[in-house]
Amino acid sequence: MQEVHKTTTVVDGLQINNWNRDVLTEVLAGGITGVNATVAVWEDPTETIRAIGEWYQFIRQNSDIALLAHDVKDLEYAKQTGRVGVLLGFQNTSSFGDDYRLVEVFYRLGVRIAQLTYNNQNAVGGACYEPVDSGLTRFGANVISEMNRVGMLVDLSHVGNKTSLDATEASVDPVAITHANPTWFIDAPRNKPQEVITAVAEKGGIIGCSMYPLIVGGEDAQLADFVAMIRRLSDDIGAEHVALGSDCTRNWGPEFLTWLRDGRWRPAAGTNPTWPTWPGWFSGPENFPRLTDAFVEAGMDETEIRGILGENWLRLFSTVFRPVTNLAENSTNGEAPHD
Amino acid sequence: MQEVHKTTTVVDGLQINNWNRDVLTEVLAGGITGVNATVAVWEDPTETIRAIGEWYQFIRQNSDIALLAHDVKDLEYAKQTGRVGVLLGFQNTSSFGDDYRLVEVFYRLGVRIAQLTYNNQNAVGGACYEPVDSGLTRFGANVISEMNRVGMLVDLSHVGNKTSLDATEASVDPVAITHANPTWFIDAPRNKPQEVITAVAEKGGIIGCSMYPLIVGGEDAQLADFVAMIRRLSDDIGAEHVALGSDCTRNWGPEFLTWLRDGRWRPAAGTNPTWPTWPGWFSGPENFPRLTDAFVEAGMDETEIRGILGENWLRLFSTVFRPVTNLAENSTNGEAPHD
Repeated sequence: MQEVHKTTTVVDGLQINNWNRDVLTEVLAGGITGVNATVAVWEDPTETIRAIGEWYQFIRQNSDIALLAHDVKDLEYAKQTGRVGVLLGFQNTSSFGDDYRLVEVFYRLGVRIAQLTYNNQNAVGGACYEPVDSGLTRFGANVISEMNRVGMLVDLSHVGNKTSLDATEASVDPVAITHANPTWFIDAPRNKPQEVITAVAEKGGIIGCSMYPLIVGGEDAQLADFVAMIRRLSDDIGAEHVALGSDCTRNWGPEFLTWLRDGRWRPAAGTNPTWPTWPGWFSGPENFPRLTDAFVEAGMDETEIRGILGENWLRLFSTVFRPVTNLAENSTNGEAPHD
Repeated sequence: MQEVHKTTTVVDGLQINNWNRDVLTEVLAGGITGVNATVAVWEDPTETIRAIGEWYQFIRQNSDIALLAHDVKDLEYAKQTGRVGVLLGFQNTSSFGDDYRLVEVFYRLGVRIAQLTYNNQNAVGGACYEPVDSGLTRFGANVISEMNRVGMLVDLSHVGNKTSLDATEASVDPVAITHANPTWFIDAPRNKPQEVITAVAEKGGIIGCSMYPLIVGGEDAQLADFVAMIRRLSDDIGAEHVALGSDCTRNWGPEFLTWLRDGRWRPAAGTNPTWPTWPGWFSGPENFPRLTDAFVEAGMDETEIRGILGENWLRLFSTVFRPVTNLAENSTNGEAPHD
């Protein structure tokens, strides 16, 4: 493992694994410290609090190798203690239901990142697979305003382009595309046109480049091409706006892909789809060091590499996440001393 | 207002008001600092997180006179800054549904006290108005174990006597009766027999004596009798186990009494019941100082008075509530410094 990899607080912008101790171990083997771990995709409020309750238990039962991360300090502490710092994240706003006040509720429960839509139009905005994108709705504008107030990062992956542009403009804070690539690299609905990427970068945000087969070029995708994409992106928008978001899907059977695609919004086909095959150079979190090898071999600047591997995410998180104690009721929230 | 009242961090063991700024002002006018404020009675998990979201907003909008209290430090801070320290509390375990992991979820959201049952048998145990009391159930034993782990206070008001005894035995931590009186004072199903009171005291817990008409003797109840009850209780079980829990129900119309009594478990009568009339010496939180006047006039010891007015609750809260940072995932929870 490259020294630069070992000494960086590496952050993966998104993983949606079927988490267990083995998967945590794979993440650690990949030299990854921070992960935006998906808690909810189609889940409603109650399903989401149940899932969060399970997360607390899972992390507690694996506290020797994992911690629940609320901020950059937690991620740095995870790095110091050789653990995975789990940032709870949503890939949809279904967890808020129709209630903007649940943004604060979930922030207080540890959720730090929320994607506005997952593939489908919802009450907040339009999505990447819809023929028509409503743009950011009135509720959506208020959700973003609440997210800004409490300090939850707006994620535009899987979001429609019009809604992405609207949301970037509406947000006071920088926003992120945690896991997608430019359409000029692979022209897929899940990837982002230059206009969206530029808007996100100009807002101070980040695009997390993804190794997920369907948006990286399939199993035949070449690592050199992936690195070249990252270099071109860095030239285009500045390396400080580029990072990684693998979209790892470890340990799931095909039923979960059916759930992701069909949720409860349409009848499933009856036979489960097949997970796409990952490129040979990246089949899971333990392959993260190969990316760094390739960055180094390509002669990329060490500061840029550190930024892409994690420091850019840390900077963005520092800007966006707010201490729970700032939520204006002036108590300790059971923790901080008053004096 | 007596000096002893002004200089004590007065705590009311339970209020179930229709909260607004006027009610907060009444509480402050009563020289009350800490209140166990009921968030949920029949509410399910989703309804409860919505209600908690509303509480955050209400407290934020009144942060000059209220704060969300998580611990004794918050209550002391509320006293210093002349505000009401709101402890979120449940009068039922319906908010946990069938999921013990929601205990931690709600604890992290600020809920510090949970009554096991509200009038009716539920999945956790038996209740004061049921002909048969199941005792603490298997789920109930696990809920108490989770409450002990996270630091949530077990409240036995409205709980059946068998379940109260079982729960007191099952709990590692002291437990409370936040708002009830002895049956030897008023023989009502909502009041507690000596056996339960003694068990709670022996566990290190507290009984919060209540001024609610139906359990204090109605509108004709005499303040002198109420004080005599408190003195006899103090002699019986020790004054350090006696406190106050008014059960104030400010600002509600009759529909809310229907909701409390009938919930969704039976058809309502069709006409709303009438709220009982409070005794002349106590019609709301602003009358708290009258109790202190009566304690002083009765020649009660100042230390005992301070204990009954609030310090006993503070001692119990200090024993039971645990910092969220102790929940074993070793992160900062977004707040405390690591070093």
